[in-house]
Amino acid sequence: MAVIAEVMRAAVLAEPGRIRVGELPVPEPGVDDVLVRVRRASLCGTDLKIRSRAFFADGGPPPGTFVPGHEYAGEVVAVGASVDEFRVGDRVVTEAHRGCMRCANCLSGSYTACLNSGRRDKGHRAQGMTVNGGFADYALNHVSTLHRLPDGVGFDAGVVLTTVGTVMHAYDVVGDLLVGARVAVLGPGPIGLLAVQVAKVLGADLVTLSGTREERLELGRAFGADVVVDARDGNGVERVLDATGGRGADVVLECSGAPSAVDDALRLVKRGGCVVLVGFFDRPVTADLNRAVMNGVTLRTVRGEGAGSVARAVSLAGQGRLVTEGLVTHHFPLEEVGAAFDTYAERRGGAIKVMLDIADA
Amino acid sequence: MAVIAEVMRAAVLAEPGRIRVGELPVPEPGVDDVLVRVRRASLCGTDLKIRSRAFFADGGPPPGTFVPGHEYAGEVVAVGASVDEFRVGDRVVTEAHRGCMRCANCLSGSYTACLNSGRRDKGHRAQGMTVNGGFADYALNHVSTLHRLPDGVGFDAGVVLTTVGTVMHAYDVVGDLLVGARVAVLGPGPIGLLAVQVAKVLGADLVTLSGTREERLELGRAFGADVVVDARDGNGVERVLDATGGRGADVVLECSGAPSAVDDALRLVKRGGCVVLVGFFDRPVTADLNRAVMNGVTLRTVRGEGAGSVARAVSLAGQGRLVTEGLVTHHFPLEEVGAAFDTYAERRGGAIKVMLDIADA
Amino acid sequence: MAVIAEVMRAAVLAEPGRIRVGELPVPEPGVDDVLVRVRRASLCGTDLKIRSRAFFADGGPPPGTFVPGHEYAGEVVAVGASVDEFRVGDRVVTEAHRGCMRCANCLSGSYTACLNSGRRDKGHRAQGMTVNGGFADYALNHVSTLHRLPDGVGFDAGVVLTTVGTVMHAYDVVGDLLVGARVAVLGPGPIGLLAVQVAKVLGADLVTLSGTREERLELGRAFGADVVVDARDGNGVERVLDATGGRGADVVLECSGAPSAVDDALRLVKRGGCVVLVGFFDRPVTADLNRAVMNGVTLRTVRGEGAGSVARAVSLAGQGRLVTEGLVTHHFPLEEVGAAFDTYAERRGGAIKVMLDIADA
Amino acid sequence: MAVIAEVMRAAVLAEPGRIRVGELPVPEPGVDDVLVRVRRASLCGTDLKIRSRAFFADGGPPPGTFVPGHEYAGEVVAVGASVDEFRVGDRVVTEAHRGCMRCANCLSGSYTACLNSGRRDKGHRAQGMTVNGGFADYALNHVSTLHRLPDGVGFDAGVVLTTVGTVMHAYDVVGDLLVGARVAVLGPGPIGLLAVQVAKVLGADLVTLSGTREERLELGRAFGADVVVDARDGNGVERVLDATGGRGADVVLECSGAPSAVDDALRLVKRGGCVVLVGFFDRPVTADLNRAVMNGVTLRTVRGEGAGSVARAVSLAGQGRLVTEGLVTHHFPLEEVGAAFDTYAERRGGAIKVMLDIADA
Repeated sequence: MAVIAEVMRAAVLAEPGRIRVGELPVPEPGVDDVLVRVRRASLCGTDLKIRSRAFFADGGPPPGTFVPGHEYAGEVVAVGASVDEFRVGDRVVTEAHRGCMRCANCLSGSYTACLNSGRRDKGHRAQGMTVNGGFADYALNHVSTLHRLPDGVGFDAGVVLTTVGTVMHAYDVVGDLLVGARVAVLGPGPIGLLAVQVAKVLGADLVTLSGTREERLELGRAFGADVVVDARDGNGVERVLDATGGRGADVVLECSGAPSAVDDALRLVKRGGCVVLVGFFDRPVTADLNRAVMNGVTLRTVRGEGAGSVARAVSLAGQGRLVTEGLVTHHFPLEEVGAAFDTYAERRGGAIKVMLDIADA
Repeated sequence: MAVIAEVMRAAVLAEPGRIRVGELPVPEPGVDDVLVRVRRASLCGTDLKIRSRAFFADGGPPPGTFVPGHEYAGEVVAVGASVDEFRVGDRVVTEAHRGCMRCANCLSGSYTACLNSGRRDKGHRAQGMTVNGGFADYALNHVSTLHRLPDGVGFDAGVVLTTVGTVMHAYDVVGDLLVGARVAVLGPGPIGLLAVQVAKVLGADLVTLSGTREERLELGRAFGADVVVDARDGNGVERVLDATGGRGADVVLECSGAPSAVDDALRLVKRGGCVVLVGFFDRPVTADLNRAVMNGVTLRTVRGEGAGSVARAVSLAGQGRLVTEGLVTHHFPLEEVGAAFDTYAERRGGAIKVMLDIADA
Repeated sequence: MAVIAEVMRAAVLAEPGRIRVGELPVPEPGVDDVLVRVRRASLCGTDLKIRSRAFFADGGPPPGTFVPGHEYAGEVVAVGASVDEFRVGDRVVTEAHRGCMRCANCLSGSYTACLNSGRRDKGHRAQGMTVNGGFADYALNHVSTLHRLPDGVGFDAGVVLTTVGTVMHAYDVVGDLLVGARVAVLGPGPIGLLAVQVAKVLGADLVTLSGTREERLELGRAFGADVVVDARDGNGVERVLDATGGRGADVVLECSGAPSAVDDALRLVKRGGCVVLVGFFDRPVTADLNRAVMNGVTLRTVRGEGAGSVARAVSLAGQGRLVTEGLVTHHFPLEEVGAAFDTYAERRGGAIKVMLDIADA
Repeated sequence: MAVIAEVMRAAVLAEPGRIRVGELPVPEPGVDDVLVRVRRASLCGTDLKIRSRAFFADGGPPPGTFVPGHEYAGEVVAVGASVDEFRVGDRVVTEAHRGCMRCANCLSGSYTACLNSGRRDKGHRAQGMTVNGGFADYALNHVSTLHRLPDGVGFDAGVVLTTVGTVMHAYDVVGDLLVGARVAVLGPGPIGLLAVQVAKVLGADLVTLSGTREERLELGRAFGADVVVDARDGNGVERVLDATGGRGADVVLECSGAPSAVDDALRLVKRGGCVVLVGFFDRPVTADLNRAVMNGVTLRTVRGEGAGSVARAVSLAGQGRLVTEGLVTHHFPLEEVGAAFDTYAERRGGAIKVMLDIADA
């Protein structure tokens, strides 16, 4: 068993807009907890809102105390008294949410919509959002938020599985097998690109990807998109419709966060189809919702992964059926977390997924 | 068996904006059809769009040929060769939609989202919308669109069951038992008022009704609403939230058609809850959809009744558990169909539901 | 705040087949726990298996240590540090199951099928089955297993809500609104009798009840059964079929535990219908399952209440829509718990539900 | 356009137990029909019951009039007046069931559980079961029962898609994505073998196949089964459990029709899991159903394909992701239909799927 240090390096929130590397005590696992030696961690759009503190209704935690990071993989170094699901040495990946598991939503399986969100005292924990996360040498996880990495899946590929979990959840809430379906993905960010891949693996008949960045669309094509649509010319909706023979897509995944995309989604979904909103919107959305009413369209939403979704992602990776090459464009050591954030925020060098290499993997 | 006339009185579309009474041949039932002697028929918002011809993408049918009306009840006077579900003399109520029953949606039970909508040749029929309806002495129905009225349910009460079918479908798509739920209804029109009643009958723990017309809110209270909210003072959302103990409603039924109501709905639905859009919007909707994404809220839609919904409504009426008194505010003979439309359109005399008394009931 | 004693009276398992009253320390609430002063508790079939120790794979706990009882109501006398859902003085009713809330089933909402059943160390608790229950002056509950009793619902009626929770769950797993459905209930025990009532309240079109004890069938009629069938003459299935017009029941609830009832259920359920197995079988079942295959019938099962089910029961009781008179046939003080068990086991004096009056209510 | 003959060769039922080749008029397509020039057709277990007439409650049709065959592929040679879904020359595969599309089950999407089964006058048709099927030069299909074959899929492979449709439907009724699931298949017949393949393609984490014929188990391994279990030594259940790490399978597909397999299925399904009964049983089943009740297990059933299932199968074949080599073991010309039946019935020469080559493909 590895000797665990008492203090650790951690990327901590400083004043709004800044993040710096500091030192914090290594956390002690509670009875249901697992302590993870973090190897790799990646940045997500939410981390930018956390850095700016727009994420926090109350201004956020005092400078120097809070560790972001909800996408990470590493090695188990200690477990709480009740934990027999993992052993020291297990290689694991995290999911973000632990519900209170006592409110009506958690009890019925919707723990990402926990009614006690933010109530650490009642058991709710959102890694790197309401409790300390994985941009540090060590991270503390509730046992239910970890998944063992299959042998053939390295830490670099493993980190991406948190995001694949969100994609899985999006397809899960559709409530139907994906095989044979026509799927339109809007927005070639990391989620959209992975959504293309997963849809093809699960047997979708047709997958289209719409966006405005040529490089990313190219990656989408490499990930299996049957049709990629550069939406800059204004005919994006028509071209997706054409690809579906005019009938529309059975499932539309809105992964762009562009408010105008909802109206597009309603125009290209088929009658009785399903639109899943995965992207976060930063302003009100205007859309012809009457189209949804007239056509019996359902709008589902996804906030991060849901029950079983990361496990599904892990299984698919273990089957060797996910490709993450090309998605992780940049690596930084933990000490350069500031540069990592800047690179990601400004999409420098075509940045898609930016990784922190926290320890050797 | 009654002798069936060869010609009949019928309210027909004239030039845009006008409706008049004319004469048409009595239709002949096909092999799967039922001919109904109409007793009572009621007006719906869609009928106004049909009168103005805004309903029709192509300008609509030639003057003098088309009979609106998709809410009616009457007596079976003839049946097609394959029909043993009904006998001459049966008292029946209609539902609006017959799907093509050969497209992917119809085959999987979503016939109100038929992909061959408007294709009469393929079997799709929407009574009073794509084929002639019930504002006439006789109406022709596919056998699957009729439901036998229980003994204790008169034609006046029976007509309303088409609308109750829409309410039933709205609760059906929520996908959960309603018992114990907190339900917020927006819009005290006929659908909203019936939604209040049905929610209480099905065991909802709390039902709120929001609107701006005092008379209708009073009727809502009489129909069982636990809390009625006059939204004119701008604090409507807060008061509904208060009624739910701050947590929000499990189910919100948007029955107003007011575009601003979607944003309200998203503010008063609980995390993980369901908003059902029942009202038709006549312009784009602007709403903070990010609230839905962050809170795992689903938006379902309903276009008229769905499979089994009118049958459920009929059962409830047969159990004596629906009250329609107060809802039907005006009666007109068929000859005064123009006045009936005007009364309904302008809500003259507090009109809620306006009925055509086509034959003695 | 009431002074809480340090020791309490408790009915404890003695040697197999015996139960006696002893003294145990009053339990201390953990951080998420609520301590309940029990007022009323009732016996269930499972308690008989616990008394005989057939319930326990390993022979069960040492004599004198274990308190059965998973149906009870009482008053909150202390709460753990994290509990703000209840206050001292609240009147509450229990549900039986707390899942580990970390296994795949608990995380997805199926905590009554917890994969860590029996693992107290991982958080699983089944009141009166794997941890001490309510046949005592005080009982310790996880906060998620309690529900506040509405003002108008006394402790006597309240205790029955645990059982109503099971009924609610049975209707919940059907996955469809009950309104308009034809429901056949087999077995007029407490669950079957309550199933009749709830089905009628929720709008079932027709409810039949089949059994062999005239008195109980009479009670079923009083509880709203449209048709009661004395199955002793061997034509029980035919008479239920007749009541449904020959088509069969949409939903069959098997509440008798009689192995032959499954074959009956398959004969009287309609094509595409749903059979819910609620009763426990004490020996293998022989049935013509090919009938299920040929007719597209689903068999669901229910083990106790599920997420939200007791809350629904409580809501219905608060609406004054449940009748429990006639169901609770016998009352005993805690000291006479042995006689209570015997009365229940042997159905002495037509015993249906037997209640322990543990403290003044 | 091909000239269509007036008479055709057809395999027809003779006296019970015999089938012979005769001549029948080529059927005329009705308004919603498609006339198919059959190229390939395959035999299914139900065809044996049809040959023996055990399939028919009333003894069946007069000798020389009835054509079996519900698995076939061919070319469109004529279409009814309403049909624009297909053109002459299209290569198509059939599904077996057309519902009446007017009963409650058909209207809600369960057309394989049609309440008017056998009522040709009301629109129900089961190819080769209640109306003439595909063991003939020409077959008449309702438009909704045909699916266009993708370019790369030949008629031989195409015929198998009817059976794959049943497999798809079995996974569909599970009501969950299959990715990441542990699936146990019982019975290595054509359905079981295809179930193995489809489960792997759709991302199942682990697929086991249990049976007693070594050759077929080998084929199962070639089709992707992770674990194959020869059940003859009596430890079949334990070995499947071991493969799941002792927890049990998430989904069990019973495809053997062996009555004892239901008890096995209940022993190897996990708590809260789902057993799908696909095989037909020819005698009553005895099983410890209490295991299902105690563990919250659902039993679903599948009778042939359901809405959308064959379309999914066709899509998967078009993606080149189904292997049918090895499954079709024998070919016979139509004239030798008797030998084909015998070969299939007696499993001569390791027969799995036996094909009639009706015309050049």
